[in-house]
This record gives sequence, C-alpha cells and structure tokens, in this order.
Amino acid sequence: MLETITEAKLKKMTLKELIALCEETREVITQTVLKSGGHLSSNLGMVELTVALHYVFDFPDDKLIFDVGHQCYTHKLLTGRYNKFNTIRQKNGISGFPKRDESPFDCYDTGHAGTSVSAALGIAKARDIKGENFDVIAVIGDGSFNNGLIYEAFNSLRLLNTNILLILNDNGMSIAPTVGSMHEYLEILSEDMAHKSKVDRHAKIFERFGFGYDGVYDGNDLEAMINKLTEVKERIKTESVILHVITKKGKGYAFCEDDPEATHGISKGGGAQSMEYSQVLGRTLTRLAEKNDKIVAVTAAMTSSLGLGDFFKKYPDRSVDVGICEEHATILCASMATEGLKPYYAVYSTFLQRSFDEIIIDICEQNLPVTLCVDRAGISGADGETHQGVFDLSFLSFIPNLTVAVPKDLNEFEKMIEFSEGFNAPLAIRYPREGKRQFGDCQKIEVGKWEKLVEGDGKYAILACGERALIQAYMGGNELKRVGIAVTIINTRFVKPLDTEMLDGLKEKFIITVEDNMLSGGFGSLINGYFNGAEKIVKNFAYADGFISQGGVAELMKERGVDGKNIAEYIKSNENR
Amino acid sequence: MLETITEAKLKKMTLKELIALCEETREVITQTVLKSGGHLSSNLGMVELTVALHYVFDFPDDKLIFDVGHQCYTHKLLTGRYNKFNTIRQKNGISGFPKRDESPFDCYDTGHAGTSVSAALGIAKARDIKGENFDVIAVIGDGSFNNGLIYEAFNSLRLLNTNILLILNDNGMSIAPTVGSMHEYLEILSEDMAHKSKVDRHAKIFERFGFGYDGVYDGNDLEAMINKLTEVKERIKTESVILHVITKKGKGYAFCEDDPEATHGISKGGGAQSMEYSQVLGRTLTRLAEKNDKIVAVTAAMTSSLGLGDFFKKYPDRSVDVGICEEHATILCASMATEGLKPYYAVYSTFLQRSFDEIIIDICEQNLPVTLCVDRAGISGADGETHQGVFDLSFLSFIPNLTVAVPKDLNEFEKMIEFSEGFNAPLAIRYPREGKRQFGDCQKIEVGKWEKLVEGDGKYAILACGERALIQAYMGGNELKRVGIAVTIINTRFVKPLDTEMLDGLKEKFIITVEDNMLSGGFGSLINGYFNGAEKIVKNFAYADGFISQGGVAELMKERGVDGKNIAEYIKSNENR
Repeated sequence: MLETITEAKLKKMTLKELIALCEETREVITQTVLKSGGHLSSNLGMVELTVALHYVFDFPDDKLIFDVGHQCYTHKLLTGRYNKFNTIRQKNGISGFPKRDESPFDCYDTGHAGTSVSAALGIAKARDIKGENFDVIAVIGDGSFNNGLIYEAFNSLRLLNTNILLILNDNGMSIAPTVGSMHEYLEILSEDMAHKSKVDRHAKIFERFGFGYDGVYDGNDLEAMINKLTEVKERIKTESVILHVITKKGKGYAFCEDDPEATHGISKGGGAQSMEYSQVLGRTLTRLAEKNDKIVAVTAAMTSSLGLGDFFKKYPDRSVDVGICEEHATILCASMATEGLKPYYAVYSTFLQRSFDEIIIDICEQNLPVTLCVDRAGISGADGETHQGVFDLSFLSFIPNLTVAVPKDLNEFEKMIEFSEGFNAPLAIRYPREGKRQFGDCQKIEVGKWEKLVEGDGKYAILACGERALIQAYMGGNELKRVGIAVTIINTRFVKPLDTEMLDGLKEKFIITVEDNMLSGGFGSLINGYFNGAEKIVKNFAYADGFISQGGVAELMKERGVDGKNIAEYIKSNENR
Repeated sequence: MLETITEAKLKKMTLKELIALCEETREVITQTVLKSGGHLSSNLGMVELTVALHYVFDFPDDKLIFDVGHQCYTHKLLTGRYNKFNTIRQKNGISGFPKRDESPFDCYDTGHAGTSVSAALGIAKARDIKGENFDVIAVIGDGSFNNGLIYEAFNSLRLLNTNILLILNDNGMSIAPTVGSMHEYLEILSEDMAHKSKVDRHAKIFERFGFGYDGVYDGNDLEAMINKLTEVKERIKTESVILHVITKKGKGYAFCEDDPEATHGISKGGGAQSMEYSQVLGRTLTRLAEKNDKIVAVTAAMTSSLGLGDFFKKYPDRSVDVGICEEHATILCASMATEGLKPYYAVYSTFLQRSFDEIIIDICEQNLPVTLCVDRAGISGADGETHQGVFDLSFLSFIPNLTVAVPKDLNEFEKMIEFSEGFNAPLAIRYPREGKRQFGDCQKIEVGKWEKLVEGDGKYAILACGERALIQAYMGGNELKRVGIAVTIINTRFVKPLDTEMLDGLKEKFIITVEDNMLSGGFGSLINGYFNGAEKIVKNFAYADGFISQGGVAELMKERGVDGKNIAEYIKSNENR
C-alpha cells in the first residue's frame, strides 16, 4: 500500500487496512535500516502513532514537528518518499531527518534535542498573527524532555497565548535510558495509568505552565490513538495539550525490543568498525582514574557511544550522565574543577555547540582545568547537515585560555589523555569516530609542539591536522614520491597554540594545510594569518562555506576537496613556480 | 564598621549592630554607585539577606554563588573590599561581579544568567567526592529562574544525590519585570504567604525535582533571615532546599523603589549618553512595522535596553519578550520565519553566545530570513570579561548561509534595517552601544558591497569595520595627513561576504584592518586569508588572545592597540618600505 499512499487514500482506509499499513511500514523500515543503516528502534515505536496522526490531521496544512527528528521514517513513507526510501541517509538520497527542502510535509528541520516545542510555539504564534487556522503538533521523546529548551518553551506558553498539541512519546530512552527527575515524574504518571484520579493530581506540573494534560495511553494501539487524537484535535482549539503516550522502542522486532540502545542507530553494513577513538578514551580514562581519584567523567545522554560505559560502571561516584543537558554538563565540569577535581566532558562535536557560551564564560574565563573530549569531530557522515562536526576548530580556536589539541592517531590520543591529566588549564581534544592508521611513535606531548613526520626536499610542507588529514597528506605524498617530489609532512597536533618555533623554521616556500573542518576560522586560516606578509605561499585544504549534506565520510571529504589526490595535483601544478 | 569588618567580627555582632551595618552598607552602595556607576537596585535589595548569610554561614569554607553576579556588592563590602569599593567596575578596580581572582570569598565567577544552580551542584558533588564537609549556597533572582539551565540543574538533583541551599531572591524583576509561567507560579506562592497549607500544596513542582521548599519570607527582614537561615543550615545536611524570599529591588532608596528598571544599571557619571544604536533600531523597526505586518520583534528580558520599548507598546501582538531564554527566543524566530513572518531577534552580543547552536541549526541550516540585531558588540566596558561583545564576528563569520553586516554609523544602521526587510536569508547586524560620528552619506546597501570613504595616494588602505573602527581609522588618517600621507579608508560594511571586487581592485600594497573584535576568527583574519599569497602586506588591528577586563571603552581599545595613533605609527614606520 505504501507505494501509492496519499493523505486522501489513507483517510479513507478502514481500521483493518490501516493496521495492515502499519505492518507494511514496520517491515519496510526494518528491512531498509538493516541494509542501509539508520535509526531503527525509535522508528519502529512510532509507526502507529504516526499513521494515526496522518489519519486524523490534515498535513501539510497542519504542521507536524519531530523533536530531534530521527523518528520520522513512517512520516516519510506516508508522504511520497517510499520509492526513495532505500536511499535514506546516503549521498544524494533522502535524509534521515525532516528536511523542508525535501517535502512540504516536513515543516521544520530538526537534529538537536529539545527544539520542537519552541518551534511549534513559533509556528502557532505565526499562525495567530496571520489569522490563519491550522493545527500545530510537536512529537517529542522523553529523552529530549530533559533539555532546558523545553522549560523555556513551557515557561512562555501563556505569554505567547497560542495553542499547540505536544505529544510526549515516552519510551524511557534517549539513546541510553532516560535519566533525571522529569523522567521519574513521567514514570509516576505512567504507573498511574489505571488510576485516573491520581494522574490528575500528579499532572499539576504541566498545568502550572498552561498545558492541559491527557495521559497515559498506549501509543502502539492504533485504534486508541486515532480516537484520542480525534478528541484532542477539538480540545486544542481552545488550549494547548500534552498528550502523553507510551511506545515501545523497537516495537515488532524482537532484537530491538530486547536491546533498543544497541539498535538506536545502525551503521550501514552493520559490520564491525575499526577501533574507535571513543574506546581509547574510555580505556585510558578508566586506567588513569585508578590512581587519580580526582578524575571525573561527565556526559550528556550518550555514555556508551562516547566509550565511557566501563568508566561509569567502575567509578559510579565519579561519573555523571545528566541526560541531554549539554549546558548544565559543561557548568558541572567547570564547578567541580574549582574544587580541585579533574573533570572530562565527553561529547560529540555537533552537540558541543550547545555549550559554546559556557565554554567561554564558565570554563575559560575562570581558566579551569576541564578537558573537553570532542568526539565525532569532522564530517560525521550519514546524519547530514545538522550533525557534521566541522565547526569546532573554528569556534574553539579564538577562545582565550583554551588549548586545542588534535591527535594524529589512536596512540597519540592516548598520550594526549595522559598529558591532559597534568595539564592545569582548559583543554579541548578533538577526534573523529574511527581510528584507522598509526603514524609511527608519538613524540612527547608538549603544549604547542608539533611533530615532523616526514622530511621532504625543502619546497613543500604539508601541515596536517588530525588523523583524517594525515591520511590524505600521506596519500598525496606517496603519489608525489612516484614523480620524484618529496614533501615534508607535519603532524600539527596543537591548533592553539600553534608551534611558532616550527613554523618559523620551515624552509619550505609552499605551505599546505589540511584539516577536516571549515576553512573559515579553522586551522588553515590561523596559518594564513601567521604567514601573512611572509614569503610563503599557503594553500588550504578545508571545507568551503556551506552546509555539508549526508554521505560517506570519505566521499564527502573527496567531494569537498580534502583529498590526497587533490593535494598532489596542487603540488604538481606548482613544480614550475 | 565596614572598614574593618571580618567574618569573625560580624558573627559577634548584636542584632542592633548588624542592622546598623546594613544601613552603612546601603549608604556606601548608594553613594558609590551614583558616583561611579554600577548595579544599584538589585544590590540594595540584597543587603539584609547577604549580611544574614555571612552571619550564619562560614565563608570562604562554605561556598556562596551569586547567579548573574551583579548583586554581590554587599558580599564584597563584607569580605575585605571596602577600601577598594570606590574602584568598582573601573579599570584596574574591583569587578562588579564575583571573581575568583579577586578574593577567596568569590568561589565561582558568574555573569550570564542561570548558571548558579549547576555550579552549586557541581561544587557540592565535588565536596561529596572528596569527602569534605561544607555548605554550598546559590542565590538566584527570579529573572534567572526562567532560564532553561535551571531546569537542567533541577532535573539532575536526585541523580547527583547531593545537597545545596538555593535561595530564590524574588523581586519580580529581571532587568525588566519578570515574565512567564514560572514567574506567575512564584507569585502564587508569594500570595500564599499567609496560608501555609496552600503553599505546601502549590510547592509540589520543586518537590518533584527533589528540593525541599521553604517560603515565602521577607528577605529584607534581617532577624527573620538569620533565624530562617540558621534553621535551614541544619536542614540541608539531609536534603536540598529552596528558600524562597521576597526582596524589594532598590530597597531603602526611594527613587529606585519607584523605578527599579531604570536604576538596574547606572552608567558612570549618570549623564545623558549620545544617541544609541538601540534607539535607531527601535525607531526604524517601529516605522517599518507600520506598513509591514510580517515584522515581529523578539527579545530575551531586555526590551528597553534594546530600544524596543515603543515597538512592544505599539505592536503587542507582534512582540515577544520570553525572559532570559536566549535559545528559545532564537528558535521562536526561526519557526516564525518558516511561516513567512519577518522576525528580528535583538540581543546583546555577549548573550547571543547562548544561541550559537540554534543560529547554526535552526536559522542558518534552514536558511531562514531571521535578522539578528547584535547590540553592545565590541568592548562593552565596565562589566568586564563576561560581558565583552568581542567574539561575535569570530563565531558568526564561519556559519554558512549567514550574512554579517556592520554599520559605519547610525544613519547606515537605519539603512541596513531597511535593507534587511527585503533580504530573504539569515542576517546579523552587529553594532556598539553608542553612535557618535556620522561618516557622510550612505551608499545603497548591497550584500557584500563596501564603501570607499577616502581615496588615498595608493600605498595604504585601511579597511575599517564599524563605527568604532572607522573613528580610529580617521584619527590615524588625520594624523598622517599632517605628515603628507593620504590613506584610503574603506567602510567594510559586510564581513560576510567580503567585497571581493573591491579587494581585488585595491592598488594599495599595505592593507590595514581595524575592528572591535578578537583578531582570531575576526574580520582581519578573513582578510589575511583573502590576501594569502598576494603581493600585499596585511596588518591587523584587533584584540589579541586573552579576556578583556573592565574599563572604559576608549581606554580598553587603546590599551589593546585598536587605536588611531597606533595605526598612524605603523604606517609611518613603513614609509621607507
């Protein structure tokens, strides 16, 4: 049925047909994700609720916003994207997140947590200002419900004086199980399911903020959902409503139901990855913490993906996962450091953006020895625009008091973590997901000291920042060797401060910078500034202005020109200069 | 008494002596602030509460954190800073905010709203980890209580399993009157003051999160505060407590009590400022909104200071002040823009840092026509490190899809706002507080088109970014005229995109950039990148790495070398090259 489904057809279906539609949808999602990768368990939980929403509301006139967004697969299948569904999260394929550019049914792009309530309120307010008449619905998981943005949005509900429907899709999980008092509160509400009067008493928090509350219902019961949504559709004409539903993450696929965390995101091919930087972080920090009882690890809802599962198990008293609260996590680290502890905040590069102000004000202005472990830095791949970690060098490099380090390989990363233990100031270490190559031994880590890996014939020096850049530098270098050109290759393991001694000593006229980051504000731009006015020709290989859409890491780096072949071409083209 | 006060002496005082101490404190604060500038009304409200805290607790062993921080004057006077108090907020004087560098009694630097609960929890958690034994107290105003960070901290209280005392200093004001549902809720609690049983019923929100709640009390009643704090000091040995007190902003100074918003921050000298950019924003936007019903203005708790008081009065349906919720404000703008509205988010540069992730993901990734009106950009002066607006060019310039404009004067600012009305993409306009000089007429605003203001003799071109930079460029230029050097002066009114046509056409060999921003990642660094490899000598006048402490705008710019005299010196020193 999915192949030819339209909003009109769906609305004419019988319950039995709709149930069959759900089954087909679940099957298509499972088969596609197992083959192509993507978010599985969260989407399986959302099938009935999404079908019910499309049955009851009139999209795209009515507006549907998915918090974070990766639970939108059923929505995509119902809105004309069945035929492209096997391209999901692939280069030039459809996105794994809602995209306004992709369909009029996607009204708001999401990717980071907690934005949906604000967005729904903004759209509803705009509707009121324009004097139009449609419904605005946000669907949010209980994991996102921990984020401070939710509170800011709730707090302004009466002020904005507009009505939305907020569907709280409660499956007890972020990527990891949800934590925190709001989660406990939601559990109380869920336990009250059978005792309506108790729910009414307990639901006062939401009512304080001006929401009507209706819950708790089984979000995987299609008929119940259709009836409930039909009823709530009327109610939101006069007030905002939170509809609290429970769904089963991984519903209908036994393996997922058993282990939803492992099947939250599935990589394409599903095979074993090479060793990951996160594993080295976890292993090293766990080892250091054995002898150093000052070491504390803080995460925001993705402990395992960051490699810290064992650390958390071994040192529960020195581990904090605050849920999706990146700002709070950052301040916890800063304040613990004021008391002489040694906090490590591990986070994906893209989510570190949420802590920007706190990095400046709380960590760096106070010059506190917090270490930011910036994982998934550089192109992150299939999640696309909203998840690329290509801005961190740009937004970290100008912050006073902050040292920014970039390891060349897993081995050097381990040494950097060891180094960080005795480093008494703010430090960021940024690294990609995968570790693939080892570049010889690691010279002693000293702040602002680089490492010359290959001595060339004196005309070209490649300054490569991090493992991915070094891989490209070596690829270029090997190609050049064949035509008799020997390039110098330098591991620029500190982006701030630069190794000015090495820079000053470079006899090479051509300086080539390579990095897995935006050109603007990144490593290359610092080198441009440094050699400003000098008799050097600096060429940057980095990402030009523009958001980077989904695709494989290697293909995107190549497309964007950060590529060994390209580097070799550039150097060859300068042989006569 | 203040001159020789110590913690030990204070603890031995009788109530009568303590009341006299409060009177003296209030007098010193009032006289100092009226003369030297600073925060008046918030500090007057805090006198008794602060004296009571010092009487009951043992600082600096116990830890006291002030949210935002500008209400710490009494605390400073009680902790050895009476003799320096007349230097408050002046260059080389004591800070108007808590500073760890200044005193062991200042345990955590604050400046931006909502960080105190997270910081208190982090310090308390560190205490527990270290097995130490002291009390941790955060004092937070009801304005900060709107910020999402509070919720994130509350949500993790049980998780962290530690005890703090949170004093909610409720005066009904941020800088402007507090807004939002949490504020209404606090009002309900306050109204319940006489009916203890009702408070107990209503206070459930805080209890949900694991706080004991005790309120509401008169925070200006010294004796009551001492007794209450003595009691609560015992209670926090076993649980975290919110102590809700009401204080009167401006207490004891009639003019302040009547108009606390006007006396929140008092400028040194207190005299009339020159025309401000904020006034032009308000006037222009109000005028445009008359004919364009799509225009919406959004602020985060400082509508008047941003010049939008009249707009809000005239167009209440198209105005939103969400309280101190910068992230939420940003998403409201983005989402309203998806519905065809034309939102303007006005905010101080330093507070825009809080919206960094939302600017990237919500506004720019979706390429939505939101205009960011970035006020108080550049050095902001007396508030010091935490409030300087010197990072915005660095953190905005690398964001894809964003256009960054910097007006040369008030007149051009007006034209830019008019231009923004028809501009269908993300736009940031950054400007300082004061408008002092007009630089001729304003050529038509086109994206990425600069304006040559002075044609020189072909050797030196000064690229000046914004009014303050242009003032210095002209000062330098005038000095050089006297020695027969005519420099080209260019108004670089777009920092992104650059005017590559004009850059390519520059015949001058020496390119001098001037800006009121960090060098790293700022305008000058973009020019360095642009002329990388070209036969140009580029010299940057911008702020070197490091936080910029308090002082007058002019003296700080001079100290940091962004100064006409300096520019002239540099050019003269190159006359023989």
